Amino acid sequence: VAVGREEIGQRSETVRRANLSAIVRELHARGPQTRSALVNRTGLTRSAIRGLIGELAAAGLVSEASPQRLGTPGRPSPLVSLDPDSASVLAIEISVDSLAVAIVGLGGVVIELTRVDRPRGDASVNEVVGVVAKLTRDARSRRRSSRRLIGVGAAIVGVVRRTDGMVSIAPNLGWRNVPLGARLSDALGLSLPVSIANDADLGALAEHRRGAAVGVDDLVFISGEVGVGGGLLVDGKPLDGIAGYAGELGHMSINPNGAECRCGSVGCWETEIGEDVLLRLAGHPDDLGLRGVDEVLRAASENDPVALAAIDHVGHWLGLGIASLINLLNPRLVVLGGRFARLHPYVGPVVEAELDRRALAAPRDLVRVVPSTLGVDAPLLGAAELAFEPLLADPALWLGRRDLMERASA
Amino acid sequence: VAVGREEIGQRSETVRRANLSAIVRELHARGPQTRSALVNRTGLTRSAIRGLIGELAAAGLVSEASPQRLGTPGRPSPLVSLDPDSASVLAIEISVDSLAVAIVGLGGVVIELTRVDRPRGDASVNEVVGVVAKLTRDARSRRRSSRRLIGVGAAIVGVVRRTDGMVSIAPNLGWRNVPLGARLSDALGLSLPVSIANDADLGALAEHRRGAAVGVDDLVFISGEVGVGGGLLVDGKPLDGIAGYAGELGHMSINPNGAECRCGSVGCWETEIGEDVLLRLAGHPDDLGLRGVDEVLRAASENDPVALAAIDHVGHWLGLGIASLINLLNPRLVVLGGRFARLHPYVGPVVEAELDRRALAAPRDLVRVVPSTLGVDAPLLGAAELAFEPLLADPALWLGRRDLMERASA
Repeated sequence: VAVGREEIGQRSETVRRANLSAIVRELHARGPQTRSALVNRTGLTRSAIRGLIGELAAAGLVSEASPQRLGTPGRPSPLVSLDPDSASVLAIEISVDSLAVAIVGLGGVVIELTRVDRPRGDASVNEVVGVVAKLTRDARSRRRSSRRLIGVGAAIVGVVRRTDGMVSIAPNLGWRNVPLGARLSDALGLSLPVSIANDADLGALAEHRRGAAVGVDDLVFISGEVGVGGGLLVDGKPLDGIAGYAGELGHMSINPNGAECRCGSVGCWETEIGEDVLLRLAGHPDDLGLRGVDEVLRAASENDPVALAAIDHVGHWLGLGIASLINLLNPRLVVLGGRFARLHPYVGPVVEAELDRRALAAPRDLVRVVPSTLGVDAPLLGAAELAFEPLLADPALWLGRRDLMERASA
Repeated sequence: VAVGREEIGQRSETVRRANLSAIVRELHARGPQTRSALVNRTGLTRSAIRGLIGELAAAGLVSEASPQRLGTPGRPSPLVSLDPDSASVLAIEISVDSLAVAIVGLGGVVIELTRVDRPRGDASVNEVVGVVAKLTRDARSRRRSSRRLIGVGAAIVGVVRRTDGMVSIAPNLGWRNVPLGARLSDALGLSLPVSIANDADLGALAEHRRGAAVGVDDLVFISGEVGVGGGLLVDGKPLDGIAGYAGELGHMSINPNGAECRCGSVGCWETEIGEDVLLRLAGHPDDLGLRGVDEVLRAASENDPVALAAIDHVGHWLGLGIASLINLLNPRLVVLGGRFARLHPYVGPVVEAELDRRALAAPRDLVRVVPSTLGVDAPLLGAAELAFEPLLADPALWLGRRDLMERASA
């Protein structure tokens, strides 16, 4: 797109806003740092940084403080930090086994986090939304100091249209065409924007920003709850597809003579590496859930051959699917999330062996497979990042615009 | 990245260059158009367009001419066109069955195109490069008027590192770690940049710019020569992966109990939809090549049940793999290139049936599967687009810089 109809005043304002965004993103992603570090990171001049920091400080978003001396000579450069209480978001996760709500402050500081178990199987939308609203009220009443909520982000184990938060299908909840965006808005009564995305996409975002994939812009994140989902990052941006449905890794066809899948197809990846397969092969009822996975891992740690064989089956098929993804996407990193992160110590070698056998040498030589470092909270933290995005993209909109922020009721 | 250290003079120059690029891209992609159309397309003011067109005209890249009257009242607006002879590129294709060389003028006008058959199987790098150099000399001597070559683009049926044109593997040629970029540079002796990419990636680019996918920014292109390759476009940009190896669709694992693949793995997609499979199932020797494919299509047109069953097998597995790609990437369009374009009239229904059965409903409802419109020349035309890219990205570099262009020797 051409840069047209430009006018100097307008252009300066655009530049100023882009520069504010660069600084706030830096501090949000990497934490407190000196002005010199910000100069290096952003390419802005020292005097530009000074002016912009002043503006952010006046609005209460950042503060400057002397760092502790670390034995280096010379005057210490003060550290610029975001104030986590100056703007916070509400993060929500609706998953197979639990519902979670967090208040997360600017800079990614978790101020409050509550996770409650929920029974597996079909869920009433009313009930889920009701529980989430109650958890939210409780969290906010405990944290009256976090007065400025600027947005709501939600992660859901399902296929979501990003534009309006319509859940087209969430098989593990028995949901179809649920207007979750609208329902959450109504139930929370916060008059704040509510953004919703797939839990695996948000897990990928969180691992990229604060977990195993910091600094890595080309990433496959594989999440494992009951089923298998995924989030793809290409050149630092989520590969969403044309309507936000991309990344359904669990529904790659991988074994055409395999089992029927919940989705209606046959032999999808999740029919070979899903939780139920692991449990059944390990001799447990396939609906035993997390307790069953804990049991398989405990048995494996004691070298139980049945448990080890079950894990090995999953590792073999995990490697087979990852090889396909490497050939398709040539990523730098594959992050194993959820259940797969816990299996990684056992399946690492068999996965690597499958990659040696099945991936093309050129992309295979460039990729690493690592476990998630954020674990079960990755999607919830990703939901917080989603809700922060409007502020990060244009902090100027929020400076002095307290009317855009919701205050806790007294 | 922050917009920093800016200085008004520098900024204006950047804006001017971006605007020149926008105009040249428009004319290159969509052909001649009026200034009014350029105003609408680029968002630039009428006076800005006038100035920039003047600059391009002075350098001989564009001309303006009165259009034919089409019965509409009023003064006809003159059409702005690129002069195809003002800058042209050399496009090269090294494929399984043929070698091709073309001279393509600005605007995508094919000035000269020669394709020669080559026998299948391992190829000597010296010989291939020698034939390409000879075809190039012949083409240039026939077209002395196209004096200004600005670059060379090459498509190859193999896995290529974009940065330097190193072919890491081209199984159908028996090549491994061939520094094709350097070899072509030496043999052509043109002192022009040589850019090399995978043939399917370039097929996708060509279909996007001039074929079945014009206006579609999220695209899966499936090419079929002997094997199966692919090119992916996301948000209008090629999904190359971290080193240009992405899009090896033919090496998705799709049938773990299937046949051994040339790549060393088992049950890759191309072991079910490759040319050899079609020929074998249709009762021909599996190395009969294009002649065999022609024969199968002829038999199918006469309702020969063996030929139809062979095509049906390919269609079934084609649909199965496309379903996976839809679930992974949520694209708007799937373009069947090469052999698959010719099979499309027969396999269309079985592919659609597999998608109904195996793809998730939400992304499936949004995608269409269509045959390529550029046919066998798609990769060659894509190679031309690759070679035009530096000029399109920054035409200012080329205005008055005839020293950057190679003149035909007298």
